[in-house]
Amino acid sequence: MNKSRVEAFSDGVFAIAITLLVLTIAQPANYHDLGRELAHRWPSLAAYVVSFAVIGIMWLNHHSLFSSFERIDRGLFYLNLLLLLTITFLPYPTGVLGEALAKGQSSTTAAVFYAVTMAVNSYAWSALWLYGSYHRRLLHASFPEEERKLATLLFTIGVVMYTLAIVVALLNAYAFLALQAAFAIYYALDPVNRRPGRGRRGGPASADDLAGGNDVASQTGLASTPGRLRRRSHGPGRR
Amino acid sequence: MNKSRVEAFSDGVFAIAITLLVLTIAQPANYHDLGRELAHRWPSLAAYVVSFAVIGIMWLNHHSLFSSFERIDRGLFYLNLLLLLTITFLPYPTGVLGEALAKGQSSTTAAVFYAVTMAVNSYAWSALWLYGSYHRRLLHASFPEEERKLATLLFTIGVVMYTLAIVVALLNAYAFLALQAAFAIYYALDPVNRRPGRGRRGGPASADDLAGGNDVASQTGLASTPGRLRRRSHGPGRR
Amino acid sequence: MNKSRVEAFSDGVFAIAITLLVLTIAQPANYHDLGRELAHRWPSLAAYVVSFAVIGIMWLNHHSLFSSFERIDRGLFYLNLLLLLTITFLPYPTGVLGEALAKGQSSTTAAVFYAVTMAVNSYAWSALWLYGSYHRRLLHASFPEEERKLATLLFTIGVVMYTLAIVVALLNAYAFLALQAAFAIYYALDPVNRRPGRGRRGGPASADDLAGGNDVASQTGLASTPGRLRRRSHGPGRR
Amino acid sequence: MNKSRVEAFSDGVFAIAITLLVLTIAQPANYHDLGRELAHRWPSLAAYVVSFAVIGIMWLNHHSLFSSFERIDRGLFYLNLLLLLTITFLPYPTGVLGEALAKGQSSTTAAVFYAVTMAVNSYAWSALWLYGSYHRRLLHASFPEEERKLATLLFTIGVVMYTLAIVVALLNAYAFLALQAAFAIYYALDPVNRRPGRGRRGGPASADDLAGGNDVASQTGLASTPGRLRRRSHGPGRR
Repeated sequence: MNKSRVEAFSDGVFAIAITLLVLTIAQPANYHDLGRELAHRWPSLAAYVVSFAVIGIMWLNHHSLFSSFERIDRGLFYLNLLLLLTITFLPYPTGVLGEALAKGQSSTTAAVFYAVTMAVNSYAWSALWLYGSYHRRLLHASFPEEERKLATLLFTIGVVMYTLAIVVALLNAYAFLALQAAFAIYYALDPVNRRPGRGRRGGPASADDLAGGNDVASQTGLASTPGRLRRRSHGPGRR
Repeated sequence: MNKSRVEAFSDGVFAIAITLLVLTIAQPANYHDLGRELAHRWPSLAAYVVSFAVIGIMWLNHHSLFSSFERIDRGLFYLNLLLLLTITFLPYPTGVLGEALAKGQSSTTAAVFYAVTMAVNSYAWSALWLYGSYHRRLLHASFPEEERKLATLLFTIGVVMYTLAIVVALLNAYAFLALQAAFAIYYALDPVNRRPGRGRRGGPASADDLAGGNDVASQTGLASTPGRLRRRSHGPGRR
Repeated sequence: MNKSRVEAFSDGVFAIAITLLVLTIAQPANYHDLGRELAHRWPSLAAYVVSFAVIGIMWLNHHSLFSSFERIDRGLFYLNLLLLLTITFLPYPTGVLGEALAKGQSSTTAAVFYAVTMAVNSYAWSALWLYGSYHRRLLHASFPEEERKLATLLFTIGVVMYTLAIVVALLNAYAFLALQAAFAIYYALDPVNRRPGRGRRGGPASADDLAGGNDVASQTGLASTPGRLRRRSHGPGRR
Repeated sequence: MNKSRVEAFSDGVFAIAITLLVLTIAQPANYHDLGRELAHRWPSLAAYVVSFAVIGIMWLNHHSLFSSFERIDRGLFYLNLLLLLTITFLPYPTGVLGEALAKGQSSTTAAVFYAVTMAVNSYAWSALWLYGSYHRRLLHASFPEEERKLATLLFTIGVVMYTLAIVVALLNAYAFLALQAAFAIYYALDPVNRRPGRGRRGGPASADDLAGGNDVASQTGLASTPGRLRRRSHGPGRR
């Protein structure tokens, strides 16, 4: 199993899914009063932007998660395929949610549909991590043990969060969409990197300096990926 | 004919086809009772998941098949193009089968249509293998002769299996869809790798250790791709 | 943050967005008088060609902008994601503008919609540049200081230009489309490279000779990216 | 202008365009008599297969044409963009031609529409070649002069052929589609490579042996790309 080729394949799928999202915004039904038509579609646009951010941030975290693995095997490949399945599927509930909100019909159902997709997605992320990190099977030898335990805890918290979001979807579709945006912003803010002594603030860091563990960290909220891991995981074999 | 560039092109086509599949699930016709609309569409979702798994697993096997070739030529390129044709076409019968099952109309015709596409796909796989392996024209010098013969036998069995699946499609569309899922799971289980003494169980294997022959093996059911081949086929020229 | 992988991801998004554009041209509604149907759609074709040129030229400038950065960080990644958002969204206003012009309905609204998208896009470009160049945080050490200041000025002018284009859109949709084509041609003409003593005219330049600063220059109208930067920014780590 | 990155971008566009083609086959309008619906759509399938072959073979020739250039510049980039425009546009006339033939309405108009697209495509190929080969500006130093002249002649013949195909389209749409298939088969047969003493027959050729000039040759009918060029054009900088 060639790791960099699986990463390139996954990158391609992420790039295509994020670009296809625009097809989820329904064409205007008539052009007599286009301004009102487009204004009426703002929930489709909002759902589009949220899903775009979700996929973009996941790409970053995918990149990072794989950099903590020394190698991959068939099992990990299939769990990765399951993860990609939930990501390539996302345009469908995105389009349905935007349309339901724009029409003001069945928006709760549409929000639950989106929420369940995201929950399954979070299960795939956790399964991928647990499969690869259990007994350190696929982890780099230098990956710190305390970080592995913390990551497992934080992936579990992610599973709980995304499962509870289904409840929010049942209560209010707009609140659910805002919650998804908040989740995305939370991961995007990457509080870990802002801690004192981390690369971004610490002088002339190299281009690779932020590559590895930080992204795992942002996925999981971790605080202490050592630089040696980050650098180590970007040998010449990387693409 | 630059082999790695043909592989990259093929990878791109696989990644796009697998991501485009989501467009085969028809949008809800109305949003008054969205829950029932979506529930009604479960066959589209099932067909989507099966085709997604099929393309994902084929990507892996394509990767592997090409790693057994030392070089490629124009003939192999065109047979590869024929293979990609059947894969990029797959979203169409996938959408038709899902819709026919959801509507409960002409589902036998739709299943046969899908089955024929998959049968042609299996012929393209076999043609690719036979063209490249006949008289060992394009194979690596180290590719074992007994494995070549066994692979030819197993590709032939694949052709028979996918041709017989057309008969199942004539009998029952749901049984046919389940059979396609079973075929996918069979290839995904990869019994070969689970044999004693193989890389995954045998200690600290490198990232490339599972790359080459194992995947050919899983495509064909082979048991004995030697490690030297697998390692050999992943020189620095690989992408 | 692995710079070359972010570039590869962005390249993929550009390639997909530029290819998806063709889906914005509506299928003929009837085939009785196809010639008239197709002729009637010329504004869709014109909008398609303009957007195609816009995305193609932006790809080139994106390539160039990133070559002036020594490394990237999370902040730059998110601004890049915002930029990609505006680019992947472009097919939607392109389709709407072409259809509105073909129907002769609400074409002003459609033009403003397109113009606002492009204005937001120009803000994302400027934000990307300012974020990366402020206090020279992410720039190559050899990037000339006077060029940084000039680039900032010229990106600001770009923001003003694209904002003023909204006014043109309010006046006349066809004039607006022509203006967008003119903007694209302006960037494509790349007056900087035509100055005496520049690579293209100056004898046997290497393949990399036009790679780096010239493209930044063409995005911003700059005149003097030194060759040493251009060469320096294309080390073996480039893809 | 980084040549390998422009090639990778072009490869991506080819891969996406060839995969998007499947979306040109219209979904069945009803599922009561699906067999007849699908059988009725055979011209769409035929147009799909022809366009798939056209794009696949063009990918190969694009690869080859670029391997004869030592470097690229902005002018070549824009001509390449024009070429990619005609290729990404091809799904539209493909869908229109298939639908017109299936409906039996305006098929001549649809065939002319497809023919004009292909003619513009052939002009873009020739412009690309003339721009890059004029005064040997961008050619590898080792590219043989007699081959350059012959290539120019053969590209010119290609322009004439594709222009005359418009006349065939005016006479009969099915004959035109068959002619396009014949053109594709002609390029695919690659008579040049079958000459005695060429790589494919001549013993243990390397993987790169068929990479460069042969493909130019197949695009143009050339007979004598020397091996030294082919090998030379695949240095470590190639992707």
